Amino acid sequence: MKMLEDRILKDGTVKEGNVLKVDSFLNHQIDIELLNEMGKEFKRRFADKKITKILTIEASGIAIASIAAQYFKVPIVFAKKSQSINLDGESYTTKIQSFTHNRVYDVIVSKKYLSPDDHILVIDDFLANGCALKGLIELVKASGASLEGIGIAIEKGFQKGGEEIRQMGIQLESLAIVDGMDWTTKTINFRANN
Amino acid sequence: MKMLEDRILKDGTVKEGNVLKVDSFLNHQIDIELLNEMGKEFKRRFADKKITKILTIEASGIAIASIAAQYFKVPIVFAKKSQSINLDGESYTTKIQSFTHNRVYDVIVSKKYLSPDDHILVIDDFLANGCALKGLIELVKASGASLEGIGIAIEKGFQKGGEEIRQMGIQLESLAIVDGMDWTTKTINFRANN
Repeated sequence: MKMLEDRILKDGTVKEGNVLKVDSFLNHQIDIELLNEMGKEFKRRFADKKITKILTIEASGIAIASIAAQYFKVPIVFAKKSQSINLDGESYTTKIQSFTHNRVYDVIVSKKYLSPDDHILVIDDFLANGCALKGLIELVKASGASLEGIGIAIEKGFQKGGEEIRQMGIQLESLAIVDGMDWTTKTINFRANN
Repeated sequence: MKMLEDRILKDGTVKEGNVLKVDSFLNHQIDIELLNEMGKEFKRRFADKKITKILTIEASGIAIASIAAQYFKVPIVFAKKSQSINLDGESYTTKIQSFTHNRVYDVIVSKKYLSPDDHILVIDDFLANGCALKGLIELVKASGASLEGIGIAIEKGFQKGGEEIRQMGIQLESLAIVDGMDWTTKTINFRANN
């Protein structure tokens, strides 16, 4: 998606260690107009899928999923990253490793909000090694719901998560795929024809 | 806001200890259509204010703030609840006590995203004792930005947060104010003429 790639080039920052910071428009301060264009693009890419619910994970996936949900006319559910005393009843749970925060999270969705009748689109902001996404895929499978696809804002194409998820036969649509970054020259290479 | 009050009566659950669970439509599964009506109502109540940015706090404030931002045509910024290694540079920080989770959080906003030129509307899902909101008010003050108002989905009017914040002279608009709940009879009383 050219609009997102252009914005990454304009306002993203490349740091040592293959870190791409987009916190001025995507995951701390958030440009809602950009998210609307991304929501339309997700709808275009999943136009042939029957979606009943969008699943995301707190925190930065929530804005993208909420705005996109308007184009699918469905509710969202966000997976929570640690047990809350306000979340009673039975839950689907898994553990995910966050390399950004260097810790392991419990990820939880109430059983009330994922059912075998649901057709799920998973939406998140970043895909790198795929740990968070594989956790969400596991929760969807545990619920018996159908996973119709995964929509990602920015995929780090040089890490293995995207390839592994596509090999599972899942429709994975990343609006921008970064195939390489160089923090010394501040360059970002996007996958062509994406 | 009658639509929100009706939804709380229909799908909210009253639990012992003055707990009101709205996780089927507001803070785990989220009804985006309802959020759109709430966003319009926030815009109506703050129509005379010049707003340049909406500030919220992760996680459940993000969806409400994102949808509301479409009616104000401004970006959102969400305060983060713990230090992230991806958040470099200088930040405004404060500590807040969460009674729901029984712990103290560091709350952080990058200095890049709150400036003295900003006119801030704070949006969050719940207001009870006001600890989270007072933390956000402190961050806005530290930045030199103007706090134009606070929009809340559900205020527990029998707790002191709302009164304290109104006494500061801040325009606080809560779309539903619960003045009392009884978990034995499953009744909820809303403040009239709100």
